[in-house]
Amino acid sequence: MSTDTAAPASAPGYAEPEVDVPALTALLDGRYAEVRQLVRTNLATYASVLDDAEDLDVDAFRERVRDVVVEMAATGQTGMGFPEEYGGGGDIGASIAAFETLAFGDLSVLVKVGVQFGLFGGAILQLGTKRHHDAYLQDLVTGRLMGCFAMTETGHGSNVQALGTVATYDVATREFVITTHGDAARKDYIGNAAKHAEVAVVFAQLEVGGRSEGVHAFVVPIREGGAVLDGVRVEDDGLKMGLNGVDNGRLWFDGVRVPREALLNRFADVSPAGVYESSIENPNRRFFTMLGTLVQGRVCVGGAGINASKVALTIATRYAVRRRQFEAASDTEEQVLLDYGMHQRRLLPLIARTYALHFAQDVVRTQLHDVFSSTPDAALEATRRELEGRAAGTKALGTWHATRTIQECREACGGAGYLAVNRFAALKADTDVFTTFEGDNHVLLQLVAKGLLTDYASEFEDMDQLGMVRFVTNLAVGTVIERTSAHKLLERVKDLLPGGDEWDQEAGLLDSEYQLAMLRFREEHMLSGVARRLKRGVDQGRNPGVVFSEVQDHVIGAANAHVERLVLEAFVDRLRDLPADAPEGNRVALALLCDLFALSTIEADRAWFMEHGRLTVQRSKSISREVNALCRKIRPLAVDLVDAWGVPVEMLRSPDLV
Amino acid sequence: MSTDTAAPASAPGYAEPEVDVPALTALLDGRYAEVRQLVRTNLATYASVLDDAEDLDVDAFRERVRDVVVEMAATGQTGMGFPEEYGGGGDIGASIAAFETLAFGDLSVLVKVGVQFGLFGGAILQLGTKRHHDAYLQDLVTGRLMGCFAMTETGHGSNVQALGTVATYDVATREFVITTHGDAARKDYIGNAAKHAEVAVVFAQLEVGGRSEGVHAFVVPIREGGAVLDGVRVEDDGLKMGLNGVDNGRLWFDGVRVPREALLNRFADVSPAGVYESSIENPNRRFFTMLGTLVQGRVCVGGAGINASKVALTIATRYAVRRRQFEAASDTEEQVLLDYGMHQRRLLPLIARTYALHFAQDVVRTQLHDVFSSTPDAALEATRRELEGRAAGTKALGTWHATRTIQECREACGGAGYLAVNRFAALKADTDVFTTFEGDNHVLLQLVAKGLLTDYASEFEDMDQLGMVRFVTNLAVGTVIERTSAHKLLERVKDLLPGGDEWDQEAGLLDSEYQLAMLRFREEHMLSGVARRLKRGVDQGRNPGVVFSEVQDHVIGAANAHVERLVLEAFVDRLRDLPADAPEGNRVALALLCDLFALSTIEADRAWFMEHGRLTVQRSKSISREVNALCRKIRPLAVDLVDAWGVPVEMLRSPDLV
Repeated sequence: MSTDTAAPASAPGYAEPEVDVPALTALLDGRYAEVRQLVRTNLATYASVLDDAEDLDVDAFRERVRDVVVEMAATGQTGMGFPEEYGGGGDIGASIAAFETLAFGDLSVLVKVGVQFGLFGGAILQLGTKRHHDAYLQDLVTGRLMGCFAMTETGHGSNVQALGTVATYDVATREFVITTHGDAARKDYIGNAAKHAEVAVVFAQLEVGGRSEGVHAFVVPIREGGAVLDGVRVEDDGLKMGLNGVDNGRLWFDGVRVPREALLNRFADVSPAGVYESSIENPNRRFFTMLGTLVQGRVCVGGAGINASKVALTIATRYAVRRRQFEAASDTEEQVLLDYGMHQRRLLPLIARTYALHFAQDVVRTQLHDVFSSTPDAALEATRRELEGRAAGTKALGTWHATRTIQECREACGGAGYLAVNRFAALKADTDVFTTFEGDNHVLLQLVAKGLLTDYASEFEDMDQLGMVRFVTNLAVGTVIERTSAHKLLERVKDLLPGGDEWDQEAGLLDSEYQLAMLRFREEHMLSGVARRLKRGVDQGRNPGVVFSEVQDHVIGAANAHVERLVLEAFVDRLRDLPADAPEGNRVALALLCDLFALSTIEADRAWFMEHGRLTVQRSKSISREVNALCRKIRPLAVDLVDAWGVPVEMLRSPDLV
Repeated sequence: MSTDTAAPASAPGYAEPEVDVPALTALLDGRYAEVRQLVRTNLATYASVLDDAEDLDVDAFRERVRDVVVEMAATGQTGMGFPEEYGGGGDIGASIAAFETLAFGDLSVLVKVGVQFGLFGGAILQLGTKRHHDAYLQDLVTGRLMGCFAMTETGHGSNVQALGTVATYDVATREFVITTHGDAARKDYIGNAAKHAEVAVVFAQLEVGGRSEGVHAFVVPIREGGAVLDGVRVEDDGLKMGLNGVDNGRLWFDGVRVPREALLNRFADVSPAGVYESSIENPNRRFFTMLGTLVQGRVCVGGAGINASKVALTIATRYAVRRRQFEAASDTEEQVLLDYGMHQRRLLPLIARTYALHFAQDVVRTQLHDVFSSTPDAALEATRRELEGRAAGTKALGTWHATRTIQECREACGGAGYLAVNRFAALKADTDVFTTFEGDNHVLLQLVAKGLLTDYASEFEDMDQLGMVRFVTNLAVGTVIERTSAHKLLERVKDLLPGGDEWDQEAGLLDSEYQLAMLRFREEHMLSGVARRLKRGVDQGRNPGVVFSEVQDHVIGAANAHVERLVLEAFVDRLRDLPADAPEGNRVALALLCDLFALSTIEADRAWFMEHGRLTVQRSKSISREVNALCRKIRPLAVDLVDAWGVPVEMLRSPDLV
């Protein structure tokens, strides 16, 4: 690396830190270092699947992916989240960590694991009771029994409460009769459905005694010995943009009968005589409680997006310190790409944001682990609600980050980045749907906003979107405005910072309390703005739906501001709580990254801060200068910082780039 | 369409315009309506190639694409740019228009056409003389003779002047000896090289009598009857992210001998006795003159990016008025996506920008046509230089627009957008490299900046990047600062607008003179800022390369500002010059789109305008509100506006979406 001529990062008194890569990896891996190491080893063992993704046809690749998944299951890697008595590892956090790490490799393998153990297995575990656990868990943990998770329909993806599949209880035979009403109600994009699943967890409107009880889940056999069962119709979804090792398909049910015991009855049941009963009286609340148990999928996908970004950044960063193009600072030698200011600007803030999201993911994974490993009580219930917002938000930001980062890295590798052997083709194509599945990102951010707008008022939590609009516009607005009034907010922020009234003008740009105060101010101001706009619209007697539509980008902006604040908090907290024996160089490097993340986040939205009186023109320009200065300081550390993520070298491929 | 409940666009006095779709299509197609119609017909005839892209393996698909290209060539579509005496159409503008329209279809076909007729054919036509034209043109126009354009090397893509392949003149045999020195000098990513090309135009450092004369082009046979010739080594580039119907490959030359006449000698020649002679004395200028003749490729790729965006937007917009999700404004019916404010924000500014880029492309295509259809003189020379900047800039903005638009449209179609049958998979994968080939977009914007910074001083034009850095920092800066001093600039802008000193505060947001003045101010201010920063750095005695690296993002920002101003000007000019009989509804609709493009462009950079005193906080917020209001007005016209692009329905596929 030649940084001498091109990157004078030297402020007086600043000494370039030395990064201890193994120590940083250990910090990042945290308490799940062991299972992460197991996955890294497995990835290396099955590295040839990356070639198979290119070389095999779709049918053969699907079989190959299935085999790899089953073989990995035998190492214990994929069953960490199941109880030990069924052959699992009994550690939910470890199962998330394993999944995240698997995202360094082929993503069809990852998604097949997610479908089988997360969605299918998770539904049996979380929505079922002992009879279902005894019947299915042992076999599904080994991969002997493949299943699918049949929720989404062609007509309804995001609005699951409106699904069209119906399950009618037949009291005479004590069976449920499952029927697809119309093509819009066919199950669609269902992983494992086209080929491998023998069993489906089917979400359908339950009808008992002529009365609709809302969406419930049923275990429905769909194949035996590879043959599709009577009454079930399967269609292959065909070629997809990516993830072609996963057999997505469509399912139709024509009066398929399953015994009464097929209802996953943790939260509601039907007696043999046909009496519906549930421990949760409010149907909306019941529905969201059931869905809430499946939050793990979102946490997994968010983490996978973050780790897929690491693969792309590792390749692009290594390439950027090898590749020379144009003489700039010297007559005789071309300059390496990463010594160009523009190239630093393209890659280094993405590295910083990846670190920030990594730490935010640690928080949400820990919260998930705690909620699902404890006995329910009131305090836990509050954490569970917080978890849902956090999971939705981190998933949205993590997967958008993946889309953006992988694209930038491909472009930063020029034509070479276009060759399939260099991984970007697969990374781009395979991660593309992450922003959509397990909850469309825009819908998820609305979910986050819903939580924020109501301070978790319980009436609100159980509402669908129409209810939400009405509720927000009629009832909750007063409270929200009170809670987040600009006055109170400014008071609160002033208390935090030494600058008093001028806190936002006098604090140091690199003071993390200042950075956090800025993001907190933005979040609360946006939120109260949304509430005010909604209330004004309704006070004027306009249609609440129309009002909501007009405010929607503001709603989503507020949610995004909330999540970015959580992400920065996670980074700042981690930095503050570094172990006493953490190498000083790592401490300095992480602090630089945290500053770069915070300031580039503020910079990206500096128009908003200026519009709302929290940035002067001069200070805004200073922030841009500081971002450039931080980039120059981080530039010589860049390779160490990406290497610390520990992406197995076999997963980088890119023989001519890294 | 149900817009009644959800989109009250009604300002007092505003009447929703009615779009005359066929008349709008005729306006957009312009003077090349006939050739565009021919291409649309051909696209429909060969629509099955879209299926073949999914169903066939790489080898079979390459053959299929070759066949389609040759069959299309027989209709005259691909030869429009060649002289009539060689079987061409003799109309360069028409050849660009044909190419642009071809981008509605499979993009391997497009790129194969570009390689064969644009790059290979263009090099023979523009760099060769009559002997080359007589020998090759007739056969290449029909596709009987396939060729490739061997410029890029593994080690050098953007910096072509530093290529490593060498052609040494052997006076004894009157031959050139072509040799690849080291793997970095292998030709790479060369379309048609892996399989179909019989002839290559090879760019190599010419050495005559022990003296290096810089990069020149040679016609080199590489295959006969499908067999690779002695001394040539070919390697397949293998699977790529997309465009797998094009056979990209690598080429090595080991002392391959070609006769003296193989030199494409329009601008320079070697006499039999080994004397080098050229009509252009300055070697840098000679090099850039040769490259300049190839500008057509950039114009083609920019136009292709813009038209690929149209396909994605047509699908996503049609889907957005069909697909319903969530009840919002009604109890009984879910709301169509495009009635949601966020969805309007996602799609409609992209439609507006696509229209703007379409008109900008008209300007650059016309300029290209004029330059290449006229006898050279001094005035033409100035236009030619302007053309180079315009072509580079439109290519960069048009291809980035494609990447961003196709991604947004895919996400806006949810999981359905992920299925290959719905076109986004191919559109994304195939267009991805557009931002890189025919000039990396960042490098192209630097080229634009170079032109701007020097007011086309002739010493500057001939410089490589190192020279550019030195020149800018030493010589030109004074002039530039003079030319664009903030004072003079403000005077100039004030003259344009009625508001006097307060022009930027008092003008109507929908006044196109105001919008243009804003973009002009930004451009000139950024440019003078770059010049000042460069000068200051060098005055402080720092390494110019280091200074340049620090200012690089600013350089690229200035170029981007310049190109966006040109794009808005193109739209405003077109609107002003609409034919008198243009339907009033179309006039209104285009004016709405022009306003939306202008204001969403200003909005996206409103931080800059606030930082530089040209937007107050209040006015900045007004612009965002106006963008939302424009979106609501355009919403009911959206389907007509995308239909007017005339994407053949066979190219949309997406059976479940449109």
